[in-house]
Amino acid sequence: MAHKYDVLGIGNAIVDILIHVDDEFLKSENLVKGSMQLVNEQEAAAIYAKLGQCIECSGGSAANTIAGLASLGGDTSYIGKVRDDQLGRVFRHDINALGTSFKTSSAAEGPATAHCLVLVTPDAERTMCTYLGACVNLTTADIDEDVVRSSKICYLEGYLWDPEPAKEAFRKAIKIAHDAGNKVSLSLSDPFCVGRHHEEFLHLVRDGVDILFANEDEIKMLYKTDNINEAALQVQKDCDMAAITCGAAGCIVINQDEIGHVQGRRVEKLVDTTGAGDLFASGFLYGLTNGKSIGECGALGNLIAGEVITHLGARPDIDLKKFIEQNA
Amino acid sequence: MAHKYDVLGIGNAIVDILIHVDDEFLKSENLVKGSMQLVNEQEAAAIYAKLGQCIECSGGSAANTIAGLASLGGDTSYIGKVRDDQLGRVFRHDINALGTSFKTSSAAEGPATAHCLVLVTPDAERTMCTYLGACVNLTTADIDEDVVRSSKICYLEGYLWDPEPAKEAFRKAIKIAHDAGNKVSLSLSDPFCVGRHHEEFLHLVRDGVDILFANEDEIKMLYKTDNINEAALQVQKDCDMAAITCGAAGCIVINQDEIGHVQGRRVEKLVDTTGAGDLFASGFLYGLTNGKSIGECGALGNLIAGEVITHLGARPDIDLKKFIEQNA
Repeated sequence: MAHKYDVLGIGNAIVDILIHVDDEFLKSENLVKGSMQLVNEQEAAAIYAKLGQCIECSGGSAANTIAGLASLGGDTSYIGKVRDDQLGRVFRHDINALGTSFKTSSAAEGPATAHCLVLVTPDAERTMCTYLGACVNLTTADIDEDVVRSSKICYLEGYLWDPEPAKEAFRKAIKIAHDAGNKVSLSLSDPFCVGRHHEEFLHLVRDGVDILFANEDEIKMLYKTDNINEAALQVQKDCDMAAITCGAAGCIVINQDEIGHVQGRRVEKLVDTTGAGDLFASGFLYGLTNGKSIGECGALGNLIAGEVITHLGARPDIDLKKFIEQNA
Repeated sequence: MAHKYDVLGIGNAIVDILIHVDDEFLKSENLVKGSMQLVNEQEAAAIYAKLGQCIECSGGSAANTIAGLASLGGDTSYIGKVRDDQLGRVFRHDINALGTSFKTSSAAEGPATAHCLVLVTPDAERTMCTYLGACVNLTTADIDEDVVRSSKICYLEGYLWDPEPAKEAFRKAIKIAHDAGNKVSLSLSDPFCVGRHHEEFLHLVRDGVDILFANEDEIKMLYKTDNINEAALQVQKDCDMAAITCGAAGCIVINQDEIGHVQGRRVEKLVDTTGAGDLFASGFLYGLTNGKSIGECGALGNLIAGEVITHLGARPDIDLKKFIEQNA
């Protein structure tokens, strides 16, 4: 069939609350720098009360990737659960504003729209505390079969494995996509997330994932190895294609023919690494859905990731289509 | 009596929704560049639906001034009305986070917390569409007599004249402040706001205001003159003290002894003028409550206004106390 969408993203629909903090704050709250920690409503409120003035901006890992792809000119769709509250309307506005189709109904009751406290330290690293809120109400009923079938790639975030009912939604989406002959892509999201769901993730990667995204810590955690080359060889056996991001060093791209390294680009002014992995996936998937070689896909991923870390927040704040015309 | 607070701000409690737009967008929406236009809920939603991805940040003119003063180390208090909704909690968190006392109860019913669509054009000018929401429910009952009495200066924004019940609250605060021997300060807010309430504002300035803040357009509108020197002479007759901001040229400071000009400071990177007037008032009032000369107050106003226009949003995003130690 002809595909209406290049990529469908499925993930936790979250509004980020961003602030600069010092390292002492992370220590005093027992937060592991660079990680994403799940918190309940009371814990989120307790940390928020200790923070200075924040700014709010739509987030969510897969949603950030889809927003980046939409800004690059890709045809995109998104599935995720917000409540019918103010932050839910902010999230919906922002993803619609970039031209993404987002038809998942808002929950009329239950927990509020999810939010994530994004704590950015002076080294530009981000540490996140996520209250999943309405995300726990994403179920198989929200997986629109027509949308999954009409998307070349179904892109899932590993974080979606945290809210229990979303797992079934996740599995349903994979089955529909594969039955339609489409590709399934997964981002491993976070090393602790991989740790929480290690066996299931390994099974998923081996049986359900065509294109895997991970950073070095995540892929090492998945294959329980300290050797990145070993991990790359493993993932080459398990998936058609993979990209391992290596921070400033760029990325390792893997398909059935090759394992290659794509050099990172120098970033003038590093502000906030939030969304670096998400926007890497935007660039990579944009290349892939436009017939580029895997090396070119990796270079596009590096380029777009290098843009998002020059400003606060995980969404593009410029027209990425123009940006790649000027920089590619 | 001993004063607990240096400055109490009273104003419309608003969350800003910020975005960069081009000049064509303002034209297509019939918006006058640089102005603040009041819109109803439907009009706000219609404009919002046409905007790209935004960021959210607490705003409100007097609240911005108070946030700046708090960041400078001043003892501050704020009165304004939000609803008990998500944006209301964001506003309350952000003003509390800077150490400001904010005891006004949230409305449990009625319109949502106010929001302002802040449209920033490539020339860094901002054009605003404000939905007043819960601000229309600020009444005399919200004016805490003890707080007004215990504040050296009661600072009011002209915008507060827009929601009808707030006028009486405004008048009540002035009476309490003056009866306690405290000073009353007013910001004229916007030339169109001055136009809407011209007679009342003129009466207010003559009878109720000790310290007036205005920009050139506002003061000319108030005194119906095209001559800024004429306007300065008029305000010298009407108020103890005044400051007229003149954009990049700095400000004119006025008291009963002198009318002087304080040169503006060169700003390296002009991004967004939102909050320039509000943060000028922060710097000026910080000087005034710390025994500085009027020329020094004007210079502090210029310095702080020059900081806020280097980034998106009207709240300080650095510690202003450190900033003035490094730059004053």
